[in-house]
Amino acid sequence: MRYSEKALIPFFMVTEDGTLSLANLVNLVQQVSERQLAGAASQTEMVKRYNIGWVITQSQIEITRMPRAEEHVTLWTEATSYNRLLCYRDYGVLDEQGNQLVIVHSTWVMMDLGTRKIVPIIDEIVEGFGAKKLTKVERLPRLPRFEDPEGERKYWVRYFDIDTNHHVNNVHYFDWMQDALGYDWMRTHKLVSANIKYEREVEPGTQLTSQYKVVREGGKTETYHQVRVGDTVNATAHLQWA
Amino acid sequence: MRYSEKALIPFFMVTEDGTLSLANLVNLVQQVSERQLAGAASQTEMVKRYNIGWVITQSQIEITRMPRAEEHVTLWTEATSYNRLLCYRDYGVLDEQGNQLVIVHSTWVMMDLGTRKIVPIIDEIVEGFGAKKLTKVERLPRLPRFEDPEGERKYWVRYFDIDTNHHVNNVHYFDWMQDALGYDWMRTHKLVSANIKYEREVEPGTQLTSQYKVVREGGKTETYHQVRVGDTVNATAHLQWA
Repeated sequence: MRYSEKALIPFFMVTEDGTLSLANLVNLVQQVSERQLAGAASQTEMVKRYNIGWVITQSQIEITRMPRAEEHVTLWTEATSYNRLLCYRDYGVLDEQGNQLVIVHSTWVMMDLGTRKIVPIIDEIVEGFGAKKLTKVERLPRLPRFEDPEGERKYWVRYFDIDTNHHVNNVHYFDWMQDALGYDWMRTHKLVSANIKYEREVEPGTQLTSQYKVVREGGKTETYHQVRVGDTVNATAHLQWA
Repeated sequence: MRYSEKALIPFFMVTEDGTLSLANLVNLVQQVSERQLAGAASQTEMVKRYNIGWVITQSQIEITRMPRAEEHVTLWTEATSYNRLLCYRDYGVLDEQGNQLVIVHSTWVMMDLGTRKIVPIIDEIVEGFGAKKLTKVERLPRLPRFEDPEGERKYWVRYFDIDTNHHVNNVHYFDWMQDALGYDWMRTHKLVSANIKYEREVEPGTQLTSQYKVVREGGKTETYHQVRVGDTVNATAHLQWA
């Protein structure tokens, strides 16, 4: 059950090169799934009844071309399948000709809002979106940790990074990861894909360290990232660049 | 000549309390004037011919109520008048019943994109929007500087703060100013008005200091802010809170 909305990319969501930032791409597509959920009265009622919330655990993003400022696009989303613990949701961005500019695969877990613990997926909730039950667990590509960063920057979690659930909006990890690479890197490389794993939330008011490693092999340029607070790794990512 | 657009406030633009952040408010309304300019073919042509750009110098924002996530609003703008050096532009946000939620008065100068110097307003450009010529200079309320901050925080200008003109998007000053007040302040105060003066741009890659002073007088709570890089004051602001 695919849900879509048309959108016009605002000026203030693009970077220096005139294309949508990765963080804003994810803001825009996740907004569409929030609206799919909010639009289904039965969903809102069930989510309240079970007192659960959705938490993203990983996303794998493939970019053919990032949309430009003032470009008309279609944003779509679909909860494709689920198993005992994970729900798989895809997102995409189409241009006016219907070409797929970006595709996002993501995995979500259900959290009990009372205990704040992960709970098994409640069939009744996801079946309303046409997601098919799987017996096996499909995993998105794994991400390595590393102990020898090539560079790092420290960031404070700011007041405006916090959403209405009193959590850091997950898109800020992308800003911390990409910004740590520096202006020169960002000005001379184009993002081709991103795979991010959210492991543990960064708390409001903490200072985090965004570390990276560059790997150049077989004509490919890749960066590995981790956001950590002390010894805890909060998120890891693998980005590919052209 | 008033120009308006309908908008639906996205989840990701609101703060913890579910209402639009000041920075995103300004992003949204300025987007509407960008579209008014872009929509007038004669404007685009003239701006190119004269090689000029618009630079904001001050804005005075009065907030009756900040729009909420998923609220349907109308955003409007109008270039009301101009004199030799300044153009006056108003913005507003209306709710579905037509109540004015926010009103913004702002002043703009014209910059020669070649020399990067301020030039006198070119009548031909602003008259297309119905702005009336004034002989006197109307000033928005003045802002004091101060040498005895009550608190301060340091921020680096990040890659994603830079817009397609290679300048810091002016809304980031609000984030730096408000964030410096801290979580406790932001969680216990509601913004009523903001008056900001942009004096000198913060350069990409620099570290800035966001300083504030709190004044409580006659039942009013006010904060004064300045963003500085070394001895240079880049922006000053006066915020009122309830």
